[in-house]
Amino acid sequence: MSENANNHASIVTVGNAIVDVIAKATDQFIAEQGMMKNAMNLIDADRATTLYDAIGPATEVSGGSAANTAVGISLLGGHAGFIGKVGTDMLARIFRHDIKAVGVEALLAADADLQTACSYILITPDKKRTMNTYLGASIALKPEDMNADAIAAADIVYIEGYLYDAPDGPACWDKMATVAREAGTKIAISLSDGWCVERHRPAMHQFIKDHCDMVLCNSEEAEIMFQTDKDNAIRQMRQLVAEAAITDGENGSIAFAGNDLVSITPDPDIAVMDTTGAGDLYASGYLYARHNGADLDIAIKLATITASEAISHIGARPQADLIEIAKPAMPTEFFG
Amino acid sequence: MSENANNHASIVTVGNAIVDVIAKATDQFIAEQGMMKNAMNLIDADRATTLYDAIGPATEVSGGSAANTAVGISLLGGHAGFIGKVGTDMLARIFRHDIKAVGVEALLAADADLQTACSYILITPDKKRTMNTYLGASIALKPEDMNADAIAAADIVYIEGYLYDAPDGPACWDKMATVAREAGTKIAISLSDGWCVERHRPAMHQFIKDHCDMVLCNSEEAEIMFQTDKDNAIRQMRQLVAEAAITDGENGSIAFAGNDLVSITPDPDIAVMDTTGAGDLYASGYLYARHNGADLDIAIKLATITASEAISHIGARPQADLIEIAKPAMPTEFFG
Repeated sequence: MSENANNHASIVTVGNAIVDVIAKATDQFIAEQGMMKNAMNLIDADRATTLYDAIGPATEVSGGSAANTAVGISLLGGHAGFIGKVGTDMLARIFRHDIKAVGVEALLAADADLQTACSYILITPDKKRTMNTYLGASIALKPEDMNADAIAAADIVYIEGYLYDAPDGPACWDKMATVAREAGTKIAISLSDGWCVERHRPAMHQFIKDHCDMVLCNSEEAEIMFQTDKDNAIRQMRQLVAEAAITDGENGSIAFAGNDLVSITPDPDIAVMDTTGAGDLYASGYLYARHNGADLDIAIKLATITASEAISHIGARPQADLIEIAKPAMPTEFFG
Repeated sequence: MSENANNHASIVTVGNAIVDVIAKATDQFIAEQGMMKNAMNLIDADRATTLYDAIGPATEVSGGSAANTAVGISLLGGHAGFIGKVGTDMLARIFRHDIKAVGVEALLAADADLQTACSYILITPDKKRTMNTYLGASIALKPEDMNADAIAAADIVYIEGYLYDAPDGPACWDKMATVAREAGTKIAISLSDGWCVERHRPAMHQFIKDHCDMVLCNSEEAEIMFQTDKDNAIRQMRQLVAEAAITDGENGSIAFAGNDLVSITPDPDIAVMDTTGAGDLYASGYLYARHNGADLDIAIKLATITASEAISHIGARPQADLIEIAKPAMPTEFFG
């Protein structure tokens, strides 16, 4: 695939537009508050207020899974766009600024009556993240917010599983799929979160079967999707979709495309600071590499490097020059 | 001095209530934008908007020099309060949450017609910070916002030099001094910034002479205050005020109280991440230790440790357990 001739984004991601509110917390606090640890918990407006009062001092950083992925792609030199919905409040201003500042095309719908989504991300001493997301404007995403021109003009559209939690989420996926198929845009999805897969398993399975060219997920999400162990889940994934990349925590990751299957182990020297965003940035590296015609082994190597950068600090968005850190490990001329 | 019997804050700090918007920038960007590098630049609302559009992706963290100091004192186990002025917007909510979350008493005036202050802090590759502060609500601080009960009930009131930039800043200082002297509350000030001292030198000098028990500053600020070299500035400071602690970058810091004078060199093993907040946290350690009756050598040791914690990460507020990192270096029983 080549960069888009008409200057449209070549990879468009679709997801929740969220500003992360990141704080430290103890395991006891997570338990007392009845949260599912290491998962994404959905909360309402009242709970968001109560929870904010209860948590420690926080740092606000733009987040959102698919948005993080778009940012990573842009930092790698790709042309990315992001579709999502925000309010007209200060968090919307922060969110829009932060994606535009790295060159991501902000394809944002805005509703003045709604609050921009935020996620209270609690980091426990074991570096795990427990998310508490108030979806606000994001949950109001409608099929008409799916920018058809941008999706049609892109080479790949990548949508996050979390969007299935929105009332019109499935309709949005259908709209996206229809536009993409007509235009010949490849469709990739992220399974997002184990509990999210649990909530929408049959529908997600059907969507992958009917529409997807590529799946990005972790091993737990794959196990829940197919209700089986990891090896069987990967086997069934190969029957369901042509291509997938599956991260597996400290075991690294694997990817397959048709008959090819490759795996990689992670760098043991990289200190784990915070797992926020690692999967999102893995997707950035993988999608960017595959879009540029890289083989699977190169794609998962780049994905591992970009994921590692997210692991090395607090917050999901990269803080280092991704090209600079990835270049030594990539084939000569990969970054031109 | 002992903890206040009536549960009022024993150290009250007064300053600008600011949320920091922290981004990386090149030296070229700083130069092109006409900023004074490594200093605090004051900007208006229009400039704040233009600048925000021009900077890279950012992280929002509560800041404000005297507020950072109050947070550090609270994290060391002290009872701190903070006086300042905010709007009723989302930044006010963030600011209030972040000081209350660590136990600082939020003695905040709020004006719904004004925007909460923010500071665009640009970190250059040399780890220096260039601040661009839109003072908003903070600059509207009035003498009546100086919580007289809290100041009178405290053992120490600590005010930042930056407040002199507010139209009613000098009147606020006078109100604070009057209340403090009547109640027997010790008065400490921070010189804040070289350019700030330059703007208000005669008035600050007079205020210190007439009212101050203690000065916290860096060597550059002292040089500007006395229009002479470092050694002479320290000599003149000793004639002006009974006690001062003066940081001197890579040379460490010195402190004097009456005839006693001690110095300390910094730990060469601590990687410099970002100088944001180091002076503010130095003040936390120094004020907390002196309030607890520590000698000068112990006070500057604790101050150096707390400053080092701020140096080791992005953002001014501490991210580690200050007591835990300071305890091994402090005398037995210091933290009880």
